[in-house]
Amino acid sequence: MKNKIIDALAAKSKNASRKLALVDTGAKDRALCAMAGALKKNAAYIIRENKKDLILAGKKGLSKALIDRLTLNKDRVFAMADSLLQIARLKDPVGEVIETTKRPNGLLIKKVRVPIGSILIIYESRPNVTSDCIGLCLKSSNAVILRGGSEAFNSNMAIFDTLNKVAVKNKIPDGAISIIKNTDRKMVDALLTQEGVIDLVIPRGGESLIREVSKKSLIPVIRHYKGVCHTYVDASADLAMAEDICFNAKVQRPGVCNAMETMLVDRRIAGKFLPSMIERFVAAGVEIRSSAEARAIVKGVKAATEEDWYTEYLGLVLSVKIVGGVDEAIAHIMKYGSYHSDAIVTKDKKNAEKFLRGVDSACVYVNASTRFTDGGQFGKGAEMGISTDKIHARGPMGLEELTSYKYIVYGNGQIRK
Amino acid sequence: MKNKIIDALAAKSKNASRKLALVDTGAKDRALCAMAGALKKNAAYIIRENKKDLILAGKKGLSKALIDRLTLNKDRVFAMADSLLQIARLKDPVGEVIETTKRPNGLLIKKVRVPIGSILIIYESRPNVTSDCIGLCLKSSNAVILRGGSEAFNSNMAIFDTLNKVAVKNKIPDGAISIIKNTDRKMVDALLTQEGVIDLVIPRGGESLIREVSKKSLIPVIRHYKGVCHTYVDASADLAMAEDICFNAKVQRPGVCNAMETMLVDRRIAGKFLPSMIERFVAAGVEIRSSAEARAIVKGVKAATEEDWYTEYLGLVLSVKIVGGVDEAIAHIMKYGSYHSDAIVTKDKKNAEKFLRGVDSACVYVNASTRFTDGGQFGKGAEMGISTDKIHARGPMGLEELTSYKYIVYGNGQIRK
Repeated sequence: MKNKIIDALAAKSKNASRKLALVDTGAKDRALCAMAGALKKNAAYIIRENKKDLILAGKKGLSKALIDRLTLNKDRVFAMADSLLQIARLKDPVGEVIETTKRPNGLLIKKVRVPIGSILIIYESRPNVTSDCIGLCLKSSNAVILRGGSEAFNSNMAIFDTLNKVAVKNKIPDGAISIIKNTDRKMVDALLTQEGVIDLVIPRGGESLIREVSKKSLIPVIRHYKGVCHTYVDASADLAMAEDICFNAKVQRPGVCNAMETMLVDRRIAGKFLPSMIERFVAAGVEIRSSAEARAIVKGVKAATEEDWYTEYLGLVLSVKIVGGVDEAIAHIMKYGSYHSDAIVTKDKKNAEKFLRGVDSACVYVNASTRFTDGGQFGKGAEMGISTDKIHARGPMGLEELTSYKYIVYGNGQIRK
Repeated sequence: MKNKIIDALAAKSKNASRKLALVDTGAKDRALCAMAGALKKNAAYIIRENKKDLILAGKKGLSKALIDRLTLNKDRVFAMADSLLQIARLKDPVGEVIETTKRPNGLLIKKVRVPIGSILIIYESRPNVTSDCIGLCLKSSNAVILRGGSEAFNSNMAIFDTLNKVAVKNKIPDGAISIIKNTDRKMVDALLTQEGVIDLVIPRGGESLIREVSKKSLIPVIRHYKGVCHTYVDASADLAMAEDICFNAKVQRPGVCNAMETMLVDRRIAGKFLPSMIERFVAAGVEIRSSAEARAIVKGVKAATEEDWYTEYLGLVLSVKIVGGVDEAIAHIMKYGSYHSDAIVTKDKKNAEKFLRGVDSACVYVNASTRFTDGGQFGKGAEMGISTDKIHARGPMGLEELTSYKYIVYGNGQIRK
């Protein structure tokens, strides 16, 4: 699966990453600001190129949701530019001294944040990912190799060309930003064998894409799997609060990974809580699939299958189950969940702590909507995505999560006895 | 490659890891102390079982060095026990609050250290690794699955049996410590497909073992590759200090990954530095392989081949090269090195900083021996090994590096607007 074009591109990226590691914060920020300006200036061109993708998408019969995600207009291009300006304003993670240790023998050991190196990002549909990834990698001094979906090819190329040209003019090493122009899958296969040259792969997209990349990659992968997020309404919950939290978690933006897919309700308050809650969901167009016990309380809703408990609907569908308390809720979440974001609504501190410890998910909430799992909402400023892995980065990945570290050790002649 | 025995073992390990995550520090430490006691009490039994391995090793004609590493005696078994006691005294990383953020909307976000889950360790020869890994994983609340080399099978089983029995008696969940009793390679292949059940694989051993594991694994891997470590003697170096540092880095314990394999010397001081330095090496039995330029200064040494610059000798052999200054030294290290540990000896602060920034290795030294790259020497108390990866953990891996984190978020009804 070796491929000369990919070999050369990866080597150039690695080489550029070493130079980029030495570029100072001011230069990176000036480049980011210039790049934001170029996006705005080139908006008409980018929108024109995007039209080509939209026409092809129409011919291919892509879904309305996909076409919406693919579409660029002036507002969306300007939002991409603003996002780059926001990244320029974030603190540079590179060079931060994480820890300092003075050893009895006089050695001074500093643990210092450094870029990871060259990062490959494989993603689907939304063209703003191109610009966001370029911005985040540049600010964290990582070279980036982009491989977007074929459905956004023209849009991605226009954004890449616009940004890369300006970057190179602004002291960013040539090769620090690169894009795969050939959408043949073999190119991806060849990229995934660049162990030791490319340092990290981040696949962003559907589950099958992520599984395929993980399987083939010889390079470390950080996965952004699905979010089968739960809200458990405890017997002690403030029911009005619980209703608002559950409604928000499901309905406010159902197509994203931190939206609720399953609502668990303590048996003791199910009769009181479920009727008005479900009425509100149904009024908002949510299809309910529930356990037999819940269907005895609220008539006219569909039965949930075993498969439903595992499902990320990404739409206005909700699984509902009645459980015997916090332990059963935890057990359900650990069996069927995806360890992304889960919440408990409760007034009982013991149950809250039990839930926080027992649910082994990236983000665990007490009395708040799971929709807050997001780099911006967590104060990270911007995000590369949400990791469902436990290695390296977990939950929202911001600039810090795009770094590694090294130990620099100052001595005055120390030798080991 | 699915295998029912492995499926059951991995599921049991995962299940135990969830229980172990909730075991408190005191209980873990009491178990570790009891386990240390059991090792001492069972020393004669363990040494008897080790004899079986030594007899087989003799029949197979294993090298003297391998047999030495394999051999257990009372001192070595007691050292294993002491190591467990030392781990019991280390700070428990689990539950540490790494970061606290209060958001403008009132959400309180805590980033909390948690165990990784179930960790598979694949290793070779030295039986003390069995005991060390059990201790480190237990203290960090990770379930561990051990797969040692067939050459140490009886020793590993005796150590495992001794430790596991006492652990289970001391409130450590059954399944938290497990060992693969069938040394068939197919078992390893089946283990490496346990993605989502086993959370991390750490291969410790030769390069071919690590490459094979990385290639086959669907589970994240942290690699401990070879150490092709360099010392660069700058023109401004204190030459007496440089001589001591280089001698220590090569000779004090040549068989380990942080020993120096290549010495780089600035052209301007080569004539002054090399003759006595090389005389000292040769007197200590070190074979020198050097560039033509160095051979013009010191007669009678072998020529280095291109291959030598890439080689981890793990013995009394040293590559020597003359370079034009710090930039050429950095370029050589980045081309031929393994990004493990590299040192500069210099009095020039600018060159020191250039070297520290330009050499992208896990540990970079100024005026000290590379031999200090070690968990104990870094103040971590004990180590799982030395990572040459840039993802998750880099350099010496102690207890902290065996953890992940999660975000716990306290609200009072917050919903996303």
